[in-house]
Amino acid sequence: MPSIFSKIIAGEIPCHKVAENETCFAFMDISPLAVGHVLVVPKTEVDKYFDLSDSELSEINLFARKIAVAIEKVIPCKRVGVAVIGLEVPHAHIHLIPLNSVADINFERKKLSLTGEKLAEVAELISGAMG
Amino acid sequence: MPSIFSKIIAGEIPCHKVAENETCFAFMDISPLAVGHVLVVPKTEVDKYFDLSDSELSEINLFARKIAVAIEKVIPCKRVGVAVIGLEVPHAHIHLIPLNSVADINFERKKLSLTGEKLAEVAELISGAMG
Repeated sequence: MPSIFSKIIAGEIPCHKVAENETCFAFMDISPLAVGHVLVVPKTEVDKYFDLSDSELSEINLFARKIAVAIEKVIPCKRVGVAVIGLEVPHAHIHLIPLNSVADINFERKKLSLTGEKLAEVAELISGAMG
Repeated sequence: MPSIFSKIIAGEIPCHKVAENETCFAFMDISPLAVGHVLVVPKTEVDKYFDLSDSELSEINLFARKIAVAIEKVIPCKRVGVAVIGLEVPHAHIHLIPLNSVADINFERKKLSLTGEKLAEVAELISGAMG
């Protein structure tokens, strides 16, 4: 059965898309730790991040960087943090989170509750800031 | 002034080294969140992870993968998590942390206090598990 992320990539489940290229897809986390929290996933359904091939690992990081640079342009933050955890969805994914303090990347914290309108607005802001 | 990580790489500050290659260096975090918590740093002193060049970003991830695969072989865990935060030391670094639960990658938690002997032993275990 395809993962929830594969269904999102296929358009079977709606998302607030930020960007995609041939191999990767980025969209807003709907349970964000901070405003501007984006998930970056490989289109290939691989469970563990470190099971990606050499080229996939490089590609997803170069793609994630483009998103991170755009996030920094439009979301007030000290820098964009990265986390790969993967204990819930068996489809590798990188969290990109605008950081003002280390609390912003604490996954044990209560998630923010943002409206669909707000998520769509932030997705568009980030997407628009990409070169 | 060189960063604390540059001093570690230069051998001016001691560390429990795990591995190095031409461009990257890996050593045990002395304030670990879990046994087996490793820091991977580029030898080039760049503050922000996403300011690394394309090739540096790819290289550090491919190098980090080798360490992560070795950690998984010798430290009981579900998988190895990744975090890039960078609010303290202005020299890009990847945290590799063996995860059994999301609490293992909560940087607001109290760090473990491990002896130098224990850190040296774990460094040797991980290093020995590298292909």
